[in-house]
Amino acid sequence: MNDGRLGTQVRIVGSGLLGTSIGLGLREHDVDVVIDDASPSSARLALDYGAGRAPASGDAPGLVVVCVPPDVTAAVVAAELAAHPDAVVCDVASVKRGVLDELTALGADLRRFVGTHPMAGRERGGAISGRADLFVGRPWVVVRESAEPAAAGLVEDLILDLGAVPVFLSADQHDRAVALVSHAPQLVASLFAARLRDGEAAALGLAGQGLRDVTRIASSDPALWVQILTANADAVAGVLRSMRDDLDAVLAALEDPDAGGSRRALADALGNGNSGVARIPGKHGQDNRFSQLVVLVADRPGELARLLTDIGAIGVNMEDLRLEHSPGAQIGFAEISVLPEAEEHLTEQLEARGWTISGSTT
Amino acid sequence: MNDGRLGTQVRIVGSGLLGTSIGLGLREHDVDVVIDDASPSSARLALDYGAGRAPASGDAPGLVVVCVPPDVTAAVVAAELAAHPDAVVCDVASVKRGVLDELTALGADLRRFVGTHPMAGRERGGAISGRADLFVGRPWVVVRESAEPAAAGLVEDLILDLGAVPVFLSADQHDRAVALVSHAPQLVASLFAARLRDGEAAALGLAGQGLRDVTRIASSDPALWVQILTANADAVAGVLRSMRDDLDAVLAALEDPDAGGSRRALADALGNGNSGVARIPGKHGQDNRFSQLVVLVADRPGELARLLTDIGAIGVNMEDLRLEHSPGAQIGFAEISVLPEAEEHLTEQLEARGWTISGSTT
Repeated sequence: MNDGRLGTQVRIVGSGLLGTSIGLGLREHDVDVVIDDASPSSARLALDYGAGRAPASGDAPGLVVVCVPPDVTAAVVAAELAAHPDAVVCDVASVKRGVLDELTALGADLRRFVGTHPMAGRERGGAISGRADLFVGRPWVVVRESAEPAAAGLVEDLILDLGAVPVFLSADQHDRAVALVSHAPQLVASLFAARLRDGEAAALGLAGQGLRDVTRIASSDPALWVQILTANADAVAGVLRSMRDDLDAVLAALEDPDAGGSRRALADALGNGNSGVARIPGKHGQDNRFSQLVVLVADRPGELARLLTDIGAIGVNMEDLRLEHSPGAQIGFAEISVLPEAEEHLTEQLEARGWTISGSTT
Repeated sequence: MNDGRLGTQVRIVGSGLLGTSIGLGLREHDVDVVIDDASPSSARLALDYGAGRAPASGDAPGLVVVCVPPDVTAAVVAAELAAHPDAVVCDVASVKRGVLDELTALGADLRRFVGTHPMAGRERGGAISGRADLFVGRPWVVVRESAEPAAAGLVEDLILDLGAVPVFLSADQHDRAVALVSHAPQLVASLFAARLRDGEAAALGLAGQGLRDVTRIASSDPALWVQILTANADAVAGVLRSMRDDLDAVLAALEDPDAGGSRRALADALGNGNSGVARIPGKHGQDNRFSQLVVLVADRPGELARLLTDIGAIGVNMEDLRLEHSPGAQIGFAEISVLPEAEEHLTEQLEARGWTISGSTT
């Protein structure tokens, strides 16, 4: 058991990825977590997974966390505020202004409401993807607006107990920020990935890490994203309009590459990209909590098991493992994530056992 | 020593990342490698690295590999064909049609020329980033065009000795393919990353893995990419024009999100992205060629190795493996990709050994 800051019963409404992960994380601090969901089968999975217990008569939550799709968030928050008049209610929806406006229109008690948005997620949703450590080290936006200080403090305790970093923004600041760093990139990835539908098979066979990275988030759930994009349409459109203008300039340069100024226009587009990407804090392209080792593995049954047996014998805990294998090659790559302090020891010990480390992935 | 297929002296012109890596890889097979470079300091580094030896009088290469920037590739290939009338000459430039056209215009002996393009690289260039295993398991395009069969065979031996997988395409097929999977994604990443120049610091602080992935390759070298994009301008423009048309449709939907058809237009853009990204082979269990099994694995040291040992004993080859692992839950999930015909047998055999299969993830 690990004492957390929260000293109250927590009711989670919605047992998808976020609700389940919040429940798992709070259970590590022995918080009394109640999980409720309009879908009994979804709730069942979260309960089996250990994210909390089913509702019971006499439940008296001090904090309700609403983790439902964006387009029903305001209605569920209003219902929870009414049903639990002594509780603080927060939501986790990806857009904050629209929820506030709807709640105002519904006449909800905004002194007990705190809008939040954890900047964490996974490609796959659902309780099955829930993780207690989903929020560790991640920013978690808090929009106080009309909330009383005690209400905001309770939500801040929730966030700190889950290992996340509270970031206080206004609703409008938040919505502009996520348009730039989350919503517009989602559409750009989807719009580019759509080009691959008509590509020749030979072309797809040449795909490397660059293409995989640019398009990775294009596998996100369209129904959820239509809700998010619709709720933040103005801000997202602003970002994409400026991209469209630059895209038109690049297209003009490509359509007449020998014209005066065409090479300059391309160089400017690439140079501006350099400047932009340099503004992203921290290490690029990887989960910066872990170091990645790439080990060459012969494409034979049993080789990967032998590698994992060796890693177990060396006594290092793998945080993640991914296998990459090119069709036709006699060899694959196992990308192993470990805590940074374990990397050197693991590399030495694996090499001593005859494994080839091909470096860290780029 | 490790005997390779190549039984001839190899002359490498250009000692950057690719030239140095080819030299290092061939030296592992004890091939006599000569490294030449217009820049003596760059050549010095590659020689010190052990990528080959300096040129000497009496050198008689059977194969010349030209590894110089794209805009001087044709001129250097022509000079090497003339200087070594008995040698086969190949290049490694990222665009193939332009090099062939220039060589034709120069009246070069195309029977001894093979265009190639290894689909491998690193974010950092230069001899200092060279690796003997850079090409292992990667596709390496071969464009035969007018080359005699013996010339193409020698280049194929080079590729196999370096552990790569030869992929035979026409020059036009290659250029269309790399426009789609490499050149257009580069511009898309750069164009989007440029939006970040004017973002508020609070917004950049919320950056997550999605933004990092979409923009990672935007840190590439503009000078090199202007050459590549100019040399493949038509094909790249074709891909980007279709993206621009879809972007305009998405912008219209965002500018009037409540209009009839706007949600449909956004859902189509996102759904088409899903379909496109699903065509990329290899990673994330999205490859349609394989079936995915999800096996429950207790969160104890050694359990995953035991699972993989069992899979090896059953005699089924895993094509891909991903771990879903939550420290908060008492259980993890191993998602295993196998050939569809192996799925039923593997499921039966694993269940017989006491493993719980939780279903397929698609």
